Amino acid sequence: MTRLSDAMKECGVLVENELDKLITVPNTPEKKVAEAMRYAVLGGGKRLRPFLLMEVAGLFNVTPAGALRAGAALEMVHCYSLIHDDLPCMDNDDMRRGKPSCHIAFGETTALLAGDALLTRAFDVLADEKTHSDPVVRCQLVTELARAAGFNGMIGGQQLDMMAADVDMDLVEITRLQQMKTGRLISYACEAGAIMGKAPYNERQILLAYAKDIGLAFQIADDILDVESSAEVMGKNVRKDVDASKATFVSFLGLDEAKKQARTLVEQAVSYLDIFDARADMLRDLARFVVERKS
Amino acid sequence: MTRLSDAMKECGVLVENELDKLITVPNTPEKKVAEAMRYAVLGGGKRLRPFLLMEVAGLFNVTPAGALRAGAALEMVHCYSLIHDDLPCMDNDDMRRGKPSCHIAFGETTALLAGDALLTRAFDVLADEKTHSDPVVRCQLVTELARAAGFNGMIGGQQLDMMAADVDMDLVEITRLQQMKTGRLISYACEAGAIMGKAPYNERQILLAYAKDIGLAFQIADDILDVESSAEVMGKNVRKDVDASKATFVSFLGLDEAKKQARTLVEQAVSYLDIFDARADMLRDLARFVVERKS
Repeated sequence: MTRLSDAMKECGVLVENELDKLITVPNTPEKKVAEAMRYAVLGGGKRLRPFLLMEVAGLFNVTPAGALRAGAALEMVHCYSLIHDDLPCMDNDDMRRGKPSCHIAFGETTALLAGDALLTRAFDVLADEKTHSDPVVRCQLVTELARAAGFNGMIGGQQLDMMAADVDMDLVEITRLQQMKTGRLISYACEAGAIMGKAPYNERQILLAYAKDIGLAFQIADDILDVESSAEVMGKNVRKDVDASKATFVSFLGLDEAKKQARTLVEQAVSYLDIFDARADMLRDLARFVVERKS
Repeated sequence: MTRLSDAMKECGVLVENELDKLITVPNTPEKKVAEAMRYAVLGGGKRLRPFLLMEVAGLFNVTPAGALRAGAALEMVHCYSLIHDDLPCMDNDDMRRGKPSCHIAFGETTALLAGDALLTRAFDVLADEKTHSDPVVRCQLVTELARAAGFNGMIGGQQLDMMAADVDMDLVEITRLQQMKTGRLISYACEAGAIMGKAPYNERQILLAYAKDIGLAFQIADDILDVESSAEVMGKNVRKDVDASKATFVSFLGLDEAKKQARTLVEQAVSYLDIFDARADMLRDLARFVVERKS
């Protein structure tokens, strides 16, 4: 996995620098919001979504600089969702990526606005011609991100997650919840790369199938880590789902079966990539990383 | 003003129907968010921004159906900002448009998510080819909305407003705050109409100057109404700024001077429209309405 971890590290540096360039702090009284935006997006995270986007874009020879901008925009949306999820009226989490949550560091008001501003900035970045020369492509990037992150995607999934402590969900419902809450944004990473590369329809569908499987495997692995790992390693509080008696893949399937399912999903995801040559090797490694990661 | 009020009423019905079509409630467990979105956008408001957008678009013969979609998207962003502004960690307002605020009716969690979802949906609507056939125009609509609503616009203005109770602001600072918090979205209404109509540069600049003046006049009028009107007429709590000892145009200028300034701005705004013929009459009437309105 050295090959993958080197590549992810390299991508992480690029994403960090790009976000640093895209979110600047002016010397004006309202600058606290920009500082909170930077606090939330810089210096942490696996950058899984931008990495995925850039790897898929690479399959279709997309200009790396454009793919990096789209990846940074996607990471902004991911980070906005973390800020809002951590707020007291949501998961009420005081720790994220090994440091105080945004609202602990900046107060609720500024954190809420920083989340709003990151979501808004993401669309600004995507619609800019520096991201892609073809305006039809840029519109598609905007449309699909809005759908993945919106009511029928991430936001709907978040609502389901907030209801999960109070209602009994079966495995089908939990799977749907997770596919909306985390799956859709992971799928968007692959879709955006394919959109930018004007990938043929069948290849786009194959990449979406790959994304759907690794997204679900990622969430199952998260549930497993929530039981097996520690707050120090994860950089966020663990066992909150158990404490809230929320149904998870682990609580339904048991630890062993959950691990087996995650591995099966990953193997299926890798098999989808058979139509691509060695250029998809990193995506193959990434699929395996999703379940083998320790944090 | 019958001509204007009839036109605004007619536009209001169109906007209401469009929003009704664009935000539907599925029969799924997370539907409460969609219900909250509809609660926040339907059945209220002057629809000032969509009206402005459609009137400007009309100057350049833009397809009304497309302008209506853009107007509805803009109204979604306006309503999202109201939901988030009313939250306990912001202005903590329990009344909006004559009914309980969104978080009072649906709870904080769902209200927060409904705001997020409205902002997200707006970009989805703008990027759709049903809004405009030219993808470059659609990208410009997205870019300019993101800038007007983002950190350098509405969100920055909101942060300043939250700071206003604790810091002494002078008239220049209050003007900047208001131009960011409410002015930028009103300017966007004019800009979006001009973008959709591919207006010549100078006409676009003139419309922006018009928008800037009526936006400021609108806010001064709001401060005046906050002092002179009642919660029943306004549909929201009044005199909150005075209670929070926030500086307003009225507290700085006094009631008479504030009224005079608002009228001066309106006459200036109207004079900008001299290059347009009678087709801009509604925009002229609207400028006057902004300061003469009773709620």
